[in-house]
Amino acid sequence: MSEDRLAAVEARLRLLEDERDIARAMASYGPLVDGGDADAVSALWAPDGVYDIDELFLAGRERIRGMVLSPAHQGWIRQGCAHVVGPPHVTVEGDTAVAVCHSLMVVHEGGRYVVRRATANHWQLRRTGSGWEVVTRTNRILDGRPESPALLVAGVRGEPAAS
Amino acid sequence: MSEDRLAAVEARLRLLEDERDIARAMASYGPLVDGGDADAVSALWAPDGVYDIDELFLAGRERIRGMVLSPAHQGWIRQGCAHVVGPPHVTVEGDTAVAVCHSLMVVHEGGRYVVRRATANHWQLRRTGSGWEVVTRTNRILDGRPESPALLVAGVRGEPAAS
Amino acid sequence: MSEDRLAAVEARLRLLEDERDIARAMASYGPLVDGGDADAVSALWAPDGVYDIDELFLAGRERIRGMVLSPAHQGWIRQGCAHVVGPPHVTVEGDTAVAVCHSLMVVHEGGRYVVRRATANHWQLRRTGSGWEVVTRTNRILDGRPESPALLVAGVRGEPAAS
Repeated sequence: MSEDRLAAVEARLRLLEDERDIARAMASYGPLVDGGDADAVSALWAPDGVYDIDELFLAGRERIRGMVLSPAHQGWIRQGCAHVVGPPHVTVEGDTAVAVCHSLMVVHEGGRYVVRRATANHWQLRRTGSGWEVVTRTNRILDGRPESPALLVAGVRGEPAAS
Repeated sequence: MSEDRLAAVEARLRLLEDERDIARAMASYGPLVDGGDADAVSALWAPDGVYDIDELFLAGRERIRGMVLSPAHQGWIRQGCAHVVGPPHVTVEGDTAVAVCHSLMVVHEGGRYVVRRATANHWQLRRTGSGWEVVTRTNRILDGRPESPALLVAGVRGEPAAS
Repeated sequence: MSEDRLAAVEARLRLLEDERDIARAMASYGPLVDGGDADAVSALWAPDGVYDIDELFLAGRERIRGMVLSPAHQGWIRQGCAHVVGPPHVTVEGDTAVAVCHSLMVVHEGGRYVVRRATANHWQLRRTGSGWEVVTRTNRILDGRPESPALLVAGVRGEPAAS
């Protein structure tokens, strides 16, 4: 009896830890990308993971690393930049997970800050031997294009992003 | 002895799960309302739940659903809109809970984004057979009116919103 | 055997509770400071805790309390102000912890809101008999100065802020 109760507790605890691990990875993205740590940013993804942004389609860690090291991104850091990502809504299903959040890209301009982009973020993750990795992160700017609201709803439902 | 320890663990785990469920519901509001999913937004509330905003007093799921479907809200979605809600501070007490957070309504305008509203959010929730439901969510814009700071402090203390 | 399993569960649960306690303290800062609750804001810090901001170096609860009560801060509250702090990334190591997040200071101006500051936040905390307390919180504005990105990366790595 107690063995069964303990096993049930362990399973519930495992789910909370999975959700924590995923939320923690998501919460690290903004500080790492604004901090310019290209290796740590790219290590959030699976080796063959995809970061699909409106303007960019980055396949694999090397291309994600290259984005952080690019003159464009380094320019944002020198100008002053905050990628505020979250809060996260996470749905774990066995060894895969879907998460959704907003992100704001806030940039320094003339002593003030402007919101340059407000974006729908949809994350697909998978469990590996060394923790959760991002398989596909899909970002679509919230500028009225219909795919962005659809992405938010799919994320809350734990469904994959439409391709 | 172990039975008692196990029971204590179960109670602590239950509290973490309650807090997770409530934070997760709060984190779903923004994506769902920006996604235009009127049914899912209204289902966050109890059937007789209240969404009390400065400009609007919405009593019951049908009125909350109607807000999402309204021409005004649909216009925000078409223009481009991010309701960024949180991070949450949650206080559970048995079968009721109080949560508090900020929200920012960020809207697309001329290729940029502006913060249209910054708001104090106070949530009262109750546990039901099918999970936590919002009984009353009280939003007051942070524009200097004294009730908004008071709402934030009441929320952190786990106290109800003054009426 | 079950005793060992139960002890392992208790340790994992304790870590989740520590992370929750720290995230909850961080999530209370914004509502409390925008709510003007000087006592509750200062009680987040250890009695000799430090709040090190670009413009201000506040050592001890009394000086933090004084900041909240100052004419400058009270003016922000009367004008309308949202200190949006988070989401948090927390690293607990025994009885100490490091956390990192962004914060946005959003102020009401002419019927709209502007982002006055976007800031890197690095938190060092310690466990006491009555819960977690902030030992040092270091805030640096993200305006291109190199110390701010460095602070974000140190925070994700669970390392102390460079002094």
